[in-house]
Amino acid sequence: MGSEERGTQAGSRYAEAGVDIDAATRARNLIKAKARTTFRPEVLTEIGAFAGLFKVPSCTDPVLVSSVDGVGTKLKIAIAMDRHDTVGVDLVNHCVNDIFTCGADPLFFLDYIAAGKLVPEKVESVVAGLAAACRDVGCALIGGETAEMPGMYSENDYDLAGFIVGIVERKRILDTDSIEEGDPVLGLPSSGLHTNGYSLVRRIFDLERKGRRALEKSYPELGRTLGEELLEPHRCYYTRLRPIIHEQPGAIKGLAHITGGGILENVGRILPDGLGASFRSGSWPVPPVFELIRDRGKVSPGEMYRVFNMGIGMVLVCSPAQLESMKAALPEAILVGEVTRIRGGKPVVIS
Amino acid sequence: MGSEERGTQAGSRYAEAGVDIDAATRARNLIKAKARTTFRPEVLTEIGAFAGLFKVPSCTDPVLVSSVDGVGTKLKIAIAMDRHDTVGVDLVNHCVNDIFTCGADPLFFLDYIAAGKLVPEKVESVVAGLAAACRDVGCALIGGETAEMPGMYSENDYDLAGFIVGIVERKRILDTDSIEEGDPVLGLPSSGLHTNGYSLVRRIFDLERKGRRALEKSYPELGRTLGEELLEPHRCYYTRLRPIIHEQPGAIKGLAHITGGGILENVGRILPDGLGASFRSGSWPVPPVFELIRDRGKVSPGEMYRVFNMGIGMVLVCSPAQLESMKAALPEAILVGEVTRIRGGKPVVIS
Repeated sequence: MGSEERGTQAGSRYAEAGVDIDAATRARNLIKAKARTTFRPEVLTEIGAFAGLFKVPSCTDPVLVSSVDGVGTKLKIAIAMDRHDTVGVDLVNHCVNDIFTCGADPLFFLDYIAAGKLVPEKVESVVAGLAAACRDVGCALIGGETAEMPGMYSENDYDLAGFIVGIVERKRILDTDSIEEGDPVLGLPSSGLHTNGYSLVRRIFDLERKGRRALEKSYPELGRTLGEELLEPHRCYYTRLRPIIHEQPGAIKGLAHITGGGILENVGRILPDGLGASFRSGSWPVPPVFELIRDRGKVSPGEMYRVFNMGIGMVLVCSPAQLESMKAALPEAILVGEVTRIRGGKPVVIS
Repeated sequence: MGSEERGTQAGSRYAEAGVDIDAATRARNLIKAKARTTFRPEVLTEIGAFAGLFKVPSCTDPVLVSSVDGVGTKLKIAIAMDRHDTVGVDLVNHCVNDIFTCGADPLFFLDYIAAGKLVPEKVESVVAGLAAACRDVGCALIGGETAEMPGMYSENDYDLAGFIVGIVERKRILDTDSIEEGDPVLGLPSSGLHTNGYSLVRRIFDLERKGRRALEKSYPELGRTLGEELLEPHRCYYTRLRPIIHEQPGAIKGLAHITGGGILENVGRILPDGLGASFRSGSWPVPPVFELIRDRGKVSPGEMYRVFNMGIGMVLVCSPAQLESMKAALPEAILVGEVTRIRGGKPVVIS
């Protein structure tokens, strides 16, 4: 908070320098109204002071779990389509999934929006997405920074980053050390690309040059336009998985959020030393958008798996004894592989 | 964490799309080493998992205090001078000052760096600044996101945002409601522009066009080059003021961090309804850089006070009875005004 862009004077030389303080004030008021819809009793101040205050919920041995993320070049799709109400959802969901891999419940969120030119209605739309996704998981949007930076961003461009803080009882942190050889690996479907691989997609479809025209093209295999498909929000797994974590403590041994690096890299991050995972390709349906990208870009299978989630947005490891109850609790979960001893160099293989 | 830019594969089509995953891996390793120097016992994981874990320090009634900030177009000065080790200091100090206005001690920090092209050594330099400033205040740098976004940023450009979480005992939150008419107002010197007013400065000195050449010009009144003056890091007030807050609870009634909007707007944010503040211009020295900007840009006094800190980086309100002990504890503090009843419309006046 408290940037120069949050001032309130208009008609000044500052405006000539490309910083529109009136627009900033208008944007701030629009943001406040949206943010207020996310507040919970622990929020001790309203937006607008120098900082956001949040009372720590009572806990025996509380651990704060935090993450920062951006939306990457998925933003360029939103900007080209002039549709700004989904990127905030992407950002919050991405952050919520990240901290939930530790078993943490979200507490509060802060955003950073930087633009070449601050258009209050555009900012409002972005924040509407942030607030909606925050409300869905009971997370308070308690702060933000809106920066107008002429000369850094093109007039229509903006960047968006978000910071989340969640909380977990220390003894409830998911115990990935309990993962053993033979444990089943379940996949939860993604809603599309989530927020990864967009620079490659933009290149393959020549979006920098063709822009909106290419995004408005309909594809029968997608059942909608390319732009609609590419803007599909990043799915949040928190509300589905949280009851299991709380009602069956220890049943979920580990969660891997499949983001950049795909299954290969992200699943490796939660496996104990010496253990790997073997995935059976064909055991889950790969959504048509990935096939379209692969065919259109002549991308090798190996690269597809490294860049994209390929239809699995979250990977869950449990014990063999828990498999049936897990499938009953999560009908959409698919058995996609199992934990193995590492053979050769690669911890995670898809065969 | 977990963006596509944190993958590890090189020589792929992804590289052709402008995303250099090798550079990202190198940058990540350089960041890790720097971040580790800031760790404290409460940090439960190393950088690189899906989230950062931090054990809540024991407290009776803990309140988390958070803030997000950017560096604004001060970054463009750093980029033009190809000097990247100070902007991280600016960012951390700005955030630390913001949460300290509530009396909070910093716990942890996360950064967001987005660039047109990721140059690992440049990122390392930025993170070195973040880490140094974090170490100075005992704050752990526990996470970050490094995004390569071709098409959003020019190849040499990058944006930098930061997010801080601190903690304060609820009963120790500065009680601005205790501020009364007649309370003395003290100013603590700034080190220069801190992080505000750079878009106006860039315009006045025509930096977009003249770039490094204009920044390398020496000014006798500054005793150094314009670039050196403009890159002077944002001062941190935490280490000076923290002992007073802890040893003389209640002595400091309010703190206002002078950022965008200057004294006029920021002091108004901490005053109870019906109260204002009257500042005596001339009671503190205005550093030469502000006079240079004013003369060169023919900026009105009113606008100077709205855009710049004018030499005061933090404003402190205490009771008249505490004034002498406050001045003894803070020899650099200057009595610059007092709290008044609002007369007319403006809460804060400079006369």
